[in-house]
Amino acid sequence: MKIAVLGAGLIGGPMARDLAVGGEFDVTVADLNPVALQRLSEVDHITPIQIDVSDKAALTRIVQPVDLVINAVPGFMGFKTLTTIIEAGKNAVDIAFFPEDPFVLDDLAKSKGITAVVDCGVAPGMSNMLVGLGHRRLDHTETAIIYVGGLPEIRQWPYEYKAVFSPVDVIEEYVRPAVYVENGVVVKRPAMSDPELIDFPGIGTLEAFNTDGVRSLYKTLEIPNMKEKTLRYPGHIEKIAVLRESGFFNTEPVEINGVKIRPLDVTAKLLFPMWQLKPGEADFTIMKIVVEGEQAGRKTRYTWDLLDRLDPASGIHSMARTTGYTATMAARLISQNRFHRAGIVVPEQIGSEPACMEFILKGLADRGVIYHEKKETL
Amino acid sequence: MKIAVLGAGLIGGPMARDLAVGGEFDVTVADLNPVALQRLSEVDHITPIQIDVSDKAALTRIVQPVDLVINAVPGFMGFKTLTTIIEAGKNAVDIAFFPEDPFVLDDLAKSKGITAVVDCGVAPGMSNMLVGLGHRRLDHTETAIIYVGGLPEIRQWPYEYKAVFSPVDVIEEYVRPAVYVENGVVVKRPAMSDPELIDFPGIGTLEAFNTDGVRSLYKTLEIPNMKEKTLRYPGHIEKIAVLRESGFFNTEPVEINGVKIRPLDVTAKLLFPMWQLKPGEADFTIMKIVVEGEQAGRKTRYTWDLLDRLDPASGIHSMARTTGYTATMAARLISQNRFHRAGIVVPEQIGSEPACMEFILKGLADRGVIYHEKKETL
Repeated sequence: MKIAVLGAGLIGGPMARDLAVGGEFDVTVADLNPVALQRLSEVDHITPIQIDVSDKAALTRIVQPVDLVINAVPGFMGFKTLTTIIEAGKNAVDIAFFPEDPFVLDDLAKSKGITAVVDCGVAPGMSNMLVGLGHRRLDHTETAIIYVGGLPEIRQWPYEYKAVFSPVDVIEEYVRPAVYVENGVVVKRPAMSDPELIDFPGIGTLEAFNTDGVRSLYKTLEIPNMKEKTLRYPGHIEKIAVLRESGFFNTEPVEINGVKIRPLDVTAKLLFPMWQLKPGEADFTIMKIVVEGEQAGRKTRYTWDLLDRLDPASGIHSMARTTGYTATMAARLISQNRFHRAGIVVPEQIGSEPACMEFILKGLADRGVIYHEKKETL
Repeated sequence: MKIAVLGAGLIGGPMARDLAVGGEFDVTVADLNPVALQRLSEVDHITPIQIDVSDKAALTRIVQPVDLVINAVPGFMGFKTLTTIIEAGKNAVDIAFFPEDPFVLDDLAKSKGITAVVDCGVAPGMSNMLVGLGHRRLDHTETAIIYVGGLPEIRQWPYEYKAVFSPVDVIEEYVRPAVYVENGVVVKRPAMSDPELIDFPGIGTLEAFNTDGVRSLYKTLEIPNMKEKTLRYPGHIEKIAVLRESGFFNTEPVEINGVKIRPLDVTAKLLFPMWQLKPGEADFTIMKIVVEGEQAGRKTRYTWDLLDRLDPASGIHSMARTTGYTATMAARLISQNRFHRAGIVVPEQIGSEPACMEFILKGLADRGVIYHEKKETL
């Protein structure tokens, strides 16, 4: 089978390698950056191609011969890219996490008879799937809470943060208001609000704060209380809030010596070298998903815990593994015809099918990404 | 007598008004900003003129008919401006606080037979004068310490800071290494190093940190221990240090979409509206100068304390009063022939002449800026 991965960065690269092992897929990797492509040039069953993914004609040519496309471009160009993929009539798995509403593409995807799974990383992604799984098991779900963070093992002042994601996408998390459900009512909270300190075994104290991770869940699942909080080392968000308050994340241009400049672009440029995980820099992904409700007349709580660390053998960062392998497992699910639903699919719809979840969790575990499930009767 | 004030901003304006009262001086105020000039257009004995002070020919024309020039331009253009004033053969009082060594202009000033007092604000300025005064009184001086800060009365997150100074000049304080004297040795410390919390009566706890305020003192006075620390509300410097570490104060351009931009210019643009004291926003200036040594065989300490607040009657900010009136009193000192020394003069040279200090302290007190002196025998 043929597959295309759009984006050869710190997540795209490991996804391409995972799919190409033993020739499971013939993988085309497209990126504008020749350095990123170069790293994949000698891997069997991978064909790196340098194109500008935002060039619609070029992108259409690339996806034409493949069966499925994984969209791993930065968020700001994600929606446009996914639209082109669907117009080309290709199945898709999307981890661009674009801000637009994916469901506006639902009719188009259905008319093409293809499946496009969006928000399909670790969170959003596995988080939604596991909430979907818990919700499926319970007779009635009262609460779903997601805590998630990807962090460097070594804490360096001032931000104590590094990641495999584009800094602009990380900053987006700090700006985009968080949508929650509280007592059945959809509420909007400012990003980074409601900070709380939480202890995690093996990690220590982290700070949790509101981010926009509920995403589609409030539209697809009837759960009266849902929220996502992102985890960082304590003190991080205070520094980020100072930057935000000062206007360093503004997209409204300011004029400097007659030239209009978006402060966000300067900020991303400065923070990029500080925030990007370098090869060999150890990171971890931590996630805790709590789904509570009633099952057979008893108050029941399902918890899934993930603590994944950089794989020292392959050197692949944890954030790339937990994000990327969720997407590659979803790609296998679709290409092996294990999931049937044309249109835009959100991960909780996969999560509500136990056989699909068994397949995905098994595939992740085979790749060392292990979710520990706990069931408690309260 | 005729005097020119270069800069019609939050300090230049009050200086011009002070000099024009009762026609003591005929004051020409030069600035590029028509709004700043407009505010002074109906004041008796003030002639506002719109020019680009960095235009040497225009500046020379402006200073030609006057007897003395007060240089209140931003620091980065201070040295060039002062050079033009001296070349024109005019006495000068400078509060631009430029980074260049003023003494390279000493021969030129002497050849023109003029007096140019540099660094002549509140600190550097009065701080140097009072250290000079203490040093003059003592038989042997062991230590001189300057604590100084200008702050808004109302503390607003995140910076809890506002001032009448150009934000680029304030940022310069956070970047320029501090030069100290310790046990007779000149040492360089990073700006913002050695933070300490100090309680001030009537104000509360402030944070003191190293800044480059010793300036000329280590060259002109033999005192084996000298340092200046700037005062801010606690927590301010941590936020500033984050900005500095992230590169937001960098003057090395970064490329954004093909355009080269200095991050500092974007930062100054964003911080300017947050950091500028608005009309009526109350501020205060706090300064403590400690000069210790031996006098008549006994260990003796002189302390000068200043706590000056916005004048509600005139609405003139404290930082403008304490900075500007030091300069206007120095201008009177020179124009009344009370101080005789051709060349570049630093304030401690005025401070070492008790009659001059009596004149300046009296003039400041008449304007409500009162330094409380204390002598202790230890």
